[in-house]
This record gives sequence, C-alpha cells and structure tokens, in this order.
Amino acid sequence: MDYKIIDVKERVLADNERCAAETRSALAERGVLLVNLMGSPGAGKTSVLLQLIKRLGAQYRIGVMEADVDSDVDARTVAEAGAKVIQLHTGGLCHMDADMTARGLEALGVGDLDLIFLENVGNLVCPAEFDVGAGLRMMILSVPEGDDKPLKYPLMFRVSDVMLVNKLDAAEVFDFDLDAAAARARALNPDIEIFPVSAKSGEGFDALADWLAKRLEERRRGL
Amino acid sequence: MDYKIIDVKERVLADNERCAAETRSALAERGVLLVNLMGSPGAGKTSVLLQLIKRLGAQYRIGVMEADVDSDVDARTVAEAGAKVIQLHTGGLCHMDADMTARGLEALGVGDLDLIFLENVGNLVCPAEFDVGAGLRMMILSVPEGDDKPLKYPLMFRVSDVMLVNKLDAAEVFDFDLDAAAARARALNPDIEIFPVSAKSGEGFDALADWLAKRLEERRRGL
Repeated sequence: MDYKIIDVKERVLADNERCAAETRSALAERGVLLVNLMGSPGAGKTSVLLQLIKRLGAQYRIGVMEADVDSDVDARTVAEAGAKVIQLHTGGLCHMDADMTARGLEALGVGDLDLIFLENVGNLVCPAEFDVGAGLRMMILSVPEGDDKPLKYPLMFRVSDVMLVNKLDAAEVFDFDLDAAAARARALNPDIEIFPVSAKSGEGFDALADWLAKRLEERRRGL
Repeated sequence: MDYKIIDVKERVLADNERCAAETRSALAERGVLLVNLMGSPGAGKTSVLLQLIKRLGAQYRIGVMEADVDSDVDARTVAEAGAKVIQLHTGGLCHMDADMTARGLEALGVGDLDLIFLENVGNLVCPAEFDVGAGLRMMILSVPEGDDKPLKYPLMFRVSDVMLVNKLDAAEVFDFDLDAAAARARALNPDIEIFPVSAKSGEGFDALADWLAKRLEERRRGL
C-alpha cells in the first residue's frame, strides 16, 4: 500500500515539474516575473503584498492570485489596494501545484501584467514541495513563530530564494534571535536573500521593493 | 489522472478511519486519554505542553509523542520537563495519520501512562483531515496569526473539541479580537470549548488543566 502511494506521488511530482517548467518559460518569454509567496498561516503574506503594491504599483502592472482553502478575505483586501486580483480556492488542498497555478494565470490574464504574486496557502510544509513555475520563491518567517523554524521545516528554507523576517515590530515581545534564524536558514541554503521587515510599520520594504524591481529589470533585459 | 489520485486518497482515508477507530477503542479500554494537539508552526504547541505537564504531571503519568518533519528540538525540551517522550519523524509528511500514531504509541508504550499528547506537525490544513484515534482534538490559534483564521482554515476549527487562544500576553501588540475569533470558531463548531491562555505567563492554564483532568476522570469512570 505504501509503495502504491509513493508511486502516485512520484508521478504527480514529475507531472508537476513538467507543467511548472512550461509556465516558467512562457512567463520568461513575456518578461513577466511570477513570485510564489509562502509562509505559515498569519505570517503576514497579505500585508507584505500591500506594502509591495504601494511601492511598486505605480511603476509596474501588478497581478495577484490569492490561493485559499476557503474564503475570499485576502482577495478583497488586495483588490482595494489597486492590484488585479483573482481568488483561487484549493478545495481543501494544502498547497498550490503547477497545474492549478497555470489555470490561475489563464484566468487572471498575464498580457497586461509585469509582476505577479501567487499568495500560496498558509503552510510551511506542502507548498515547499510543489514547484508552481515561479521565477522567484519568497517565504515569510514571522517573529512570533520563533527562530527555530528552519530546523523544523528545512525544505521551505532550502527551496526559497528570499526569506522575509516579518513582524520585526513585535521583536521586543518575543524572544526571537534574528542572527540565529538567519544562520539556520543559511546553513540550509547559503544563497538565500534575507530581508528583515515589518509589514505593520513598513520598515525594510524600500530595500525589498528595490531588490524586486532589479530582479524584474534583469528578467526583461533577458528578453 | 485526477480521479486516480482521488481514488487513492479516498482509500487512504478509509483505511485511516479504520485504524483510528481501533486505536481509540484500545485506549478507551485502558482508560488512557490521547490528545491530538494541532496548530500552525510557532503557535506554541510545545510551550502549551510544558504548562500542562507542570500542572498535571504530579497527578497523572504523562506521555508525549513529538511529531516533526525533521529535528528533535521539542522532544528534548519536553523530556527535560519530566514526561515520557518519543520523537516521530514524518519524513517530509505534513501530518500524522492513524497508522503512524499507532506505531508511535507502540514505541512509546502506553501501559504506564494515563494521558498522552501527540504534538502534530505544525500545520492548520492537513492534520485536520486525518483522525489519529485521539479521544480529544485540541487546536491552538495564537494571537499573532490573526482572528480571521477560522474563515481561512475552517476544517481545523470544525473538527476540534478544544481551541486554545495562545500568546494572550502579546494581545496589545496585535490587532486581535478575541470575541470575533471565538464567534467565527463557534459558527463552524458550536460545541467547541475555548480557552484563552498564555503559555509564556501561564495565564489560563489552571482552568485548562482542571478541564482536562475532568475529561480524563470521565474516561476512567467509563471503564
């Protein structure tokens, strides 16, 4: 029984890789950057998006796909900020896969967009396993979750290009060691870019927005 | 392809239910209470256990199964508190299922225990789907995660018997409405027991420990 399940999982993951590669090359041809934004429930994914839309929305045409097990709370919030938004319901599934993402991009329409964010389901485990075809994987670790999370959810830190340490404004209340968290993440992934931010106060977002804009410009020059 | 996956999932869930029912009746016969403790990464599962062990450890023989994708950070912490502990590694899996739990109980040994906690993988989605055979499902929502979580992860709130609202000590820093969170949880699950607590200060744990002791005594009278 175990082996059967593993077979199916391997087949699913192989199909997923193929679909993700197609999405990645189709977006690269158009010079569009897709960012897969991941993190625990309540890590601040939507608030991070609002800060980035505020800083990059005048310069770039931004689209957002809000993936949720249920509800459309976040899609409404992001739409009010002025981005082009669609809500995706995973129907109980704990992550987005490449096929669902491809269908989401089709529904969103990418022809009039420069930068697209996929707000993945709040989960530090499953989304790390599924390449959705993004050009950039960005994960959020929030201060209240604790600096030991890289030890417990290593894959997420291993596959991410960028790690935001969010809720820095609450650092006083929690016993969070930023250097320890960064060292643990870099032990898993020496190339990970780390940005300490506060989506509440806006701290750190100018640097992050500049960095993202550079990645987008590089992508366009690659056309 | 989709249907094949669903078939396997349904078969897996049916097998899981059967195994969970066996565990539940075996534990009930012995008068042992198994608590499935669930919550997001960093919600405070281990700290909650430490507070409960402190209050119930003299009266009852407590065992803990620490499930983690990786690492044994929590098992060491809990062992130092004096409980009988084993570490379970899920090998990348995002939840515990009934079979893994049954094997964990066998490895832990239940003959000398009254109360057993399974600290599930930090995840608000997948663990809600898998009955592990526990007599009580306890979930933690921590204040920094936000009061909207019942809207986004409804199944977890629907299947839980108890909801702890943890990190109350940080309520000032976060815009968390306890009444709204409670109302949203009760809309999904009118019978859910709600305990506001702070695993940092210990606030609320006397009431929770009394309540748990009552459930355990009920279970023993049912012998």
